Amino acid sequence: MAPHLVQPGWRFWRQAACTLGASVQHRTWAGVSRIPRLGSPWGATATSPRVYRSGFSTSPRAPEVMLTRERYPVRRLPFSVVSGEDLAAFERIVPGRVITDPEVLEASNVDWLRTVRGSSVLLLRPRTTEEVSHILRHCHERNLAVNPQGGNTGMVGGSVPVFDEIILSTALMNQVISFHDMSGTLVCQAGCVLEDLSRHVEERGFVMPLDLGAKGSCHIGGNVATNAGGLRFLRYGSLHGTVLGLEVVLADGTVLNCLSTLRKDNTGYDLKQLFIGSEGTLGVITAVSILCPPKPRAVSVAFLSCPGFSEVLQTFSTCKGLLGEILSAYEFMDAECMWLVTHHLRLASPVQDPSRFIPDQHTGRRYHVAESVCASEPVDPESPFYVLIETSGSRAGHDAEKLNDFLEQVLSSGLVTDGTVATDHMKVKALWALRERISEALSRDGYVYKYDLSLPTERLYDLVTDLRARLGPRAKHVVGYGHLGDGNLHLNVTSEAFSPSVLGALEPYVYEWTAEQRGSVSAEHGLGFKKRGVLGYSKPPEALRLMQQLKALLDPKGILNPYKTLPAQA
Amino acid sequence: MAPHLVQPGWRFWRQAACTLGASVQHRTWAGVSRIPRLGSPWGATATSPRVYRSGFSTSPRAPEVMLTRERYPVRRLPFSVVSGEDLAAFERIVPGRVITDPEVLEASNVDWLRTVRGSSVLLLRPRTTEEVSHILRHCHERNLAVNPQGGNTGMVGGSVPVFDEIILSTALMNQVISFHDMSGTLVCQAGCVLEDLSRHVEERGFVMPLDLGAKGSCHIGGNVATNAGGLRFLRYGSLHGTVLGLEVVLADGTVLNCLSTLRKDNTGYDLKQLFIGSEGTLGVITAVSILCPPKPRAVSVAFLSCPGFSEVLQTFSTCKGLLGEILSAYEFMDAECMWLVTHHLRLASPVQDPSRFIPDQHTGRRYHVAESVCASEPVDPESPFYVLIETSGSRAGHDAEKLNDFLEQVLSSGLVTDGTVATDHMKVKALWALRERISEALSRDGYVYKYDLSLPTERLYDLVTDLRARLGPRAKHVVGYGHLGDGNLHLNVTSEAFSPSVLGALEPYVYEWTAEQRGSVSAEHGLGFKKRGVLGYSKPPEALRLMQQLKALLDPKGILNPYKTLPAQA
Repeated sequence: MAPHLVQPGWRFWRQAACTLGASVQHRTWAGVSRIPRLGSPWGATATSPRVYRSGFSTSPRAPEVMLTRERYPVRRLPFSVVSGEDLAAFERIVPGRVITDPEVLEASNVDWLRTVRGSSVLLLRPRTTEEVSHILRHCHERNLAVNPQGGNTGMVGGSVPVFDEIILSTALMNQVISFHDMSGTLVCQAGCVLEDLSRHVEERGFVMPLDLGAKGSCHIGGNVATNAGGLRFLRYGSLHGTVLGLEVVLADGTVLNCLSTLRKDNTGYDLKQLFIGSEGTLGVITAVSILCPPKPRAVSVAFLSCPGFSEVLQTFSTCKGLLGEILSAYEFMDAECMWLVTHHLRLASPVQDPSRFIPDQHTGRRYHVAESVCASEPVDPESPFYVLIETSGSRAGHDAEKLNDFLEQVLSSGLVTDGTVATDHMKVKALWALRERISEALSRDGYVYKYDLSLPTERLYDLVTDLRARLGPRAKHVVGYGHLGDGNLHLNVTSEAFSPSVLGALEPYVYEWTAEQRGSVSAEHGLGFKKRGVLGYSKPPEALRLMQQLKALLDPKGILNPYKTLPAQA
Repeated sequence: MAPHLVQPGWRFWRQAACTLGASVQHRTWAGVSRIPRLGSPWGATATSPRVYRSGFSTSPRAPEVMLTRERYPVRRLPFSVVSGEDLAAFERIVPGRVITDPEVLEASNVDWLRTVRGSSVLLLRPRTTEEVSHILRHCHERNLAVNPQGGNTGMVGGSVPVFDEIILSTALMNQVISFHDMSGTLVCQAGCVLEDLSRHVEERGFVMPLDLGAKGSCHIGGNVATNAGGLRFLRYGSLHGTVLGLEVVLADGTVLNCLSTLRKDNTGYDLKQLFIGSEGTLGVITAVSILCPPKPRAVSVAFLSCPGFSEVLQTFSTCKGLLGEILSAYEFMDAECMWLVTHHLRLASPVQDPSRFIPDQHTGRRYHVAESVCASEPVDPESPFYVLIETSGSRAGHDAEKLNDFLEQVLSSGLVTDGTVATDHMKVKALWALRERISEALSRDGYVYKYDLSLPTERLYDLVTDLRARLGPRAKHVVGYGHLGDGNLHLNVTSEAFSPSVLGALEPYVYEWTAEQRGSVSAEHGLGFKKRGVLGYSKPPEALRLMQQLKALLDPKGILNPYKTLPAQA
């Protein structure tokens, strides 16, 4: 049963009317079928081609990305250089899958954000754990540095080489090993694409416990190696809880088989936990066992407009109480985010308030009716916020009742000024795209300074407001969005091109601000190359020392993903 | 709204009639108020006195527990012996909290199951992390072995000394540090009793994400150190997911402050994970930050009788589908368990079938009407099973509808033959007591051989049936119960007294059987002292080697909880 509301001004889509491209009441959605999803580099529903990011790098208009070693003060560590004998040895291990073609390598040397670029001359594509083991044994003996790479969708430069590290791609390790229909336990190779896995388990009545904007490209091994959070974190929690087992190849080629499918196993230390979030610096994940929750029978998404951040917070409290166990996501985005996705990606806002904005059909810019301010300039902080609330439950009628009660309450109390609800699968996806594709829209806006912070929810947005004032016209946009339900802010700043002055105004200011709130300077993106120097803002020296000891224990020569995660040692 | 059923033979309690001791329709429940909860050593609802287990040890009838070093082939490692100078140093660190009185020490030297006994001459009771740090620094310098101890409710001899290790009790570290009303984040010292914490957060609209039979005694620090699973695991998952931060004192006294309250923090390796489930062998947990879910507004418990194990499994599948997100526990127990709790603890079964059994009021024994077989002998495997299903949700009416639909389906299909449902708090607790107090009932039945296994659910009960045949009259009882929803079987065997012959028939048979199924030889109890030798049945040699390396890294002198978790090294 679909939810229904009689609230004046509330736009409701009946499920029957929600097929893609069908005529719907709400004018901004008449063009829903125009959403350029397929072929998008970061498309929520895109299915092909897979290596979207390479589409960027091969674009004739895309400027060359500066080499990491030139932009950043980093020195190559004394690893060996790949020799002819090494190439011959690798050819014996992975025949026909030893790639040295610079054009092919280009896509693997540059991160998808196009902010860092390595100069690797060798890409290896193993198919099996045994092959990975042989490769690493050889690299360990020869002191060759290795950069494990999944879908290369990371945000912090962790997935591409810094210098000439050998790129060890999991792209061909893409087999599902088993799925247990009763328990929902999936076992698969590390290179399976998240979206493929989602499809695989959804056909069997389950869902993956994680979902993220990069699902069409990212590999499950990379998700685990970076402890990806994503859009279902609020409901299904961290990978530290949902990953049941891992198979990992250690730096010296030892295969560590902890690929358990058991929900509970307290035999000794839980070694797999060490590798979750270690960004490929402690071992190469080759297979994953993960618990998939049953697929909800009913999913609804409400996309709402809130007049201020305080109302965003109060709406969250209200929905936790009234939606309870069916609440599966609570995301927020500010008005600038909405401008970016509508402008750069031509997505349509389902909750535009025509009395407030008039979009210019030719330029894509929007104008405040009252003030006639060009919105491509920083929007003032009084602009509205949007929240996306997802419910997932086992009984559509019950869920609709809960959602309706919630919506009536937030509308009547003024916490929410406008909104729309979808239950149809395609409409749900289209609403999610508004939130999921912000990152893509930002990358089209210019050079992006990305911050992924955990903060006390009450103060989450203060930093955005603060930075707008601090940066003034130096920034093209300063936007805040993210997983409010998890206290996770994605703070992004764009400028026309990389600017040391903007960077200097942002750092260490953002990190100090976060540390003062006892927040995390990397909530879910990890540290990779770009953030490794800021670990100390969120962890004490004793923790840092222990991390370095663990690295030395597991990878004594430091060949695994060097220059990543841990700060450079003096 | 309460659930209702018109199914003939179905006994339903209306919430109004469910106050404790009120006259209810069902005769076996007329005596519910007689349940001896208070003062019980393992009482589900007991609140005092705290150190229940000492009630056992001081009982004049309780036989002396054999010293561990006499029963098991274990050799003392070359640690120092506590000297007068050490005592003086400790007196300076924790003045007035240096205990050497043998009578007080007795309770801390013996495990609650009364199967192992150390001979420590010193118990220290720090109040602060700083005191723990000073104690460990001294012990590290002096090469004194330390046995961290929480509520001493462990099942595997992990919480008591093997020889003369100094007992470091967290009993006085029992302060709640903070609770955040919006996020539900609790920060507290390690010695807080789980039940106290439950009460604390429930008063604020939240629940602890874990619950277990020992809640009245166990400490949260011990729960985390042993990665306790318990009764809410099915709903809220593992402590690896719900623990947000830890403060740990390392072997040399270093304080590792990872007491984050953030849901997401990907800054470097997630060090806290190392200590979850490490049984005090890698560090002493002094404070815990844990995420508490909102308190469900409605809780129902159904206690059902199933005619066979196949029906137990099918009932589980059915309830996962129909109850969905409100399912919070699925526990099972066999008929012998029911006999034990009704006989030893005088609990009343809510679903006894009078046509099948006649309890003898004088002896407590029960007789099958048809066969007149004394049930203190092993019950034949065709005897019924019981399942306890808990639902927790935000809307009583919705939950009741779901539960009713489920019950109608399982009753009409014959998967369930009888049952009762409770929504009243006290009745819910009373039903839970049947399941939670099995362990206590077993301890009153004789010497208990305990196995805590993860197995594929389809084969979970085969081992119990198998062992009944294998052991024959040598065993008093062979029982199976546990967290079916998590694939976790508690297999217990009792005999009048410890018998090497029974042990020989059980081990390594049980472990080999489990390993053949790729199960875990310790699902949630850990390895402690008694199971440390069987780690190899569930983990490969490479994993064992890495565990030993981690131990050597974090505790190079091996002073923390020696003889525990890892097998003795050659």
